[in-house]
Amino acid sequence: MNTPFSYLSHLECSHCGQTYDAHQVQTFCPICQTPLLADYDWTAAAAHLKRDQFQARRKGMWRWHELLPVGDEAHIVTLGEGDTPILTLARLGDELGLQRLYLKDESLNPTGTFKARGLSAAVSRARELGVQRLTIPTAGNAGGALAAYAARAGIPAQVFMPADTPLANIEESRITGAEVTLVEGLISDAARLSVEAARQNGALDVSTFKEPYRMEGKKTMGYEIAEAFDWRLPDVIVYPAGGGMGLAAIWKAFGELRRLGWLEGDHLPRMVAVQAAGCAPVVAAFEKRAETCEFWQNAHTQASGLRVPKSFGDRLILQTLYESNGLALAVSDEEMMRAQQQLARCEGIFAAPEGAANVAALHHLIESNWLAADEQVLLLNTGTGLKYLR
Amino acid sequence: MNTPFSYLSHLECSHCGQTYDAHQVQTFCPICQTPLLADYDWTAAAAHLKRDQFQARRKGMWRWHELLPVGDEAHIVTLGEGDTPILTLARLGDELGLQRLYLKDESLNPTGTFKARGLSAAVSRARELGVQRLTIPTAGNAGGALAAYAARAGIPAQVFMPADTPLANIEESRITGAEVTLVEGLISDAARLSVEAARQNGALDVSTFKEPYRMEGKKTMGYEIAEAFDWRLPDVIVYPAGGGMGLAAIWKAFGELRRLGWLEGDHLPRMVAVQAAGCAPVVAAFEKRAETCEFWQNAHTQASGLRVPKSFGDRLILQTLYESNGLALAVSDEEMMRAQQQLARCEGIFAAPEGAANVAALHHLIESNWLAADEQVLLLNTGTGLKYLR
Ligand SMILES: [Zn+2]
Ligand SMILES: [Zn+2]
Repeated sequence: MNTPFSYLSHLECSHCGQTYDAHQVQTFCPICQTPLLADYDWTAAAAHLKRDQFQARRKGMWRWHELLPVGDEAHIVTLGEGDTPILTLARLGDELGLQRLYLKDESLNPTGTFKARGLSAAVSRARELGVQRLTIPTAGNAGGALAAYAARAGIPAQVFMPADTPLANIEESRITGAEVTLVEGLISDAARLSVEAARQNGALDVSTFKEPYRMEGKKTMGYEIAEAFDWRLPDVIVYPAGGGMGLAAIWKAFGELRRLGWLEGDHLPRMVAVQAAGCAPVVAAFEKRAETCEFWQNAHTQASGLRVPKSFGDRLILQTLYESNGLALAVSDEEMMRAQQQLARCEGIFAAPEGAANVAALHHLIESNWLAADEQVLLLNTGTGLKYLR
Repeated sequence: MNTPFSYLSHLECSHCGQTYDAHQVQTFCPICQTPLLADYDWTAAAAHLKRDQFQARRKGMWRWHELLPVGDEAHIVTLGEGDTPILTLARLGDELGLQRLYLKDESLNPTGTFKARGLSAAVSRARELGVQRLTIPTAGNAGGALAAYAARAGIPAQVFMPADTPLANIEESRITGAEVTLVEGLISDAARLSVEAARQNGALDVSTFKEPYRMEGKKTMGYEIAEAFDWRLPDVIVYPAGGGMGLAAIWKAFGELRRLGWLEGDHLPRMVAVQAAGCAPVVAAFEKRAETCEFWQNAHTQASGLRVPKSFGDRLILQTLYESNGLALAVSDEEMMRAQQQLARCEGIFAAPEGAANVAALHHLIESNWLAADEQVLLLNTGTGLKYLR
């Protein structure tokens, strides 16, 4: 029997559980205004797939295609995203007093950030479903990634970003042919314009959590982590949360792997969301054990990817932290900058400020004894520092 | 029987054939002032290795360790370099009238360029041989890569680069802790200072072709190409030649694979060296069928990596072109810029000007009928355009 290229079965509202047809273009649940999640035929997948068959395939996130939403290989829009390295940080670990510290370096993706995974999946599926035009509001890196994948797919794209977004994001979006609109304000202001443009032009708005497939691309980080750690997950995963989709997506992946029976043991990591002191809606909600976030007023931080006053997927982010017995914490811009230098000096990795925020967070987690010295701790560096030069 | 971690046997002068001990620190042949090449025990390697065993290993250039110069895995200094994607360029191919056009995207390396491979190998081997300090002259990207790998190894490094090198290269070198000296002049002027610093400080100068192991890292591009094309090499490979080591290294790899009996058929690619009109010593030498290059006066081009007035490995570059029935040609900075836009618009790839030069070269090769429409043509994009923003 031939196994299908994808086991995608349907979409399901992450809040009310209502199901939706995955073979139509969908956005989010119209009933409760929350994200839709892609679901798969797990029984068939568990019966026909083996966790160790993926390692020998050609590298890249699409080697997990049975668990991704594209039904026909011909529709995949790839620039070689995924399969980023997981590095041991022995020298930084020594400085911090951590014996088993690791970093997954997502800067080794097309367009230099983890955003490539999500947009590769979203643009591929949009092409498969016949979408003719795409729009996106962005803090920066997602716009660059959408522009790149849309260009490769030959689909026109509009990108809405704050006027003070790093130059690299503006340039990479323009050169790949996207129509770039610089907005006086934040990503939340850009979002309104993107929705309006989508409505006017019959485009699909691929804003974070507002369509179901970016999440699917991002979850491959979780698969790669499990595989690299021989299916026995690390104790702690530290992730910088702006839109926060990566965090929720990795958690989704772990749930799927558990359902498939591919994990060794029951052990799941504690998930840590790191935010900037100048924009920390998840931290504020977490400290109140709230289910959703409040809009953060006057958001400001040099880590442009963390300048997200309220994520559309706030409920999923907070659920991830609560379920995993994790934590949310904020670090200052000064701490990020010092951490960026420490990581570069110790390990030769020039991380984006968002990625450096994780190192800054480690200092707090060690000081408060939330982390033990012998725990396996994995940091995600979401992008390259090269995109933030003045 | 246990196979060794590396089959490295000795070093050999690329000109006079004199052999040198690979277990001592070596630079270049003192007799004829030309590069030394690493050689291996091919009989043992052919007996014990199988070409198809490498695919299933963890990703990265060190999965070829038996054919690389490091004897003990513990000495490897890695940031996850290698195994960059090879992409089909269907839309650009359509515009140009080429049916089988491919691009290997070396921008998905640590530090955003192909230089990572060479410096990973050179720093690893230097660490294995007990080197305490490293220096490098650079047009930019090699300096950033050395700084990163030296930091990760905990070895102090000095980087000498022209004062007008792109800001990204200066910043990435400084933040990883290298001592950066900005030189009024070109890489050739930086080279003199690097040699002097190495002499004064007892450091190893890892200048292009002046130590034997950067070449070994770069040759893994050739292995990956052969593997990705199922061991039947493409018809033409187009490479931007500044120092030109990548070109010579890929050619060395093909020779090694042929010797191992791993290639399907006798077919080797025609190798094309692309230079900037403002600095084209290889093109000038190629047109005279000369064995070596003359120093190019008043070198100038926006493609900083191509601003190399004379490579120390000029003889090897020219040999590669002659033996492969290849070609050298130059393109203008204006052509590069148009090609950069064309590649970005068609395929979503924001290439460095050096990588874009290959696309510019294609226009000439098609126009002159040097390329047939159905030939398999592989371009190397050596780095990301993000490093060249003003
Ligand atoms: Zn709902
Ligand atoms: Zn010699």
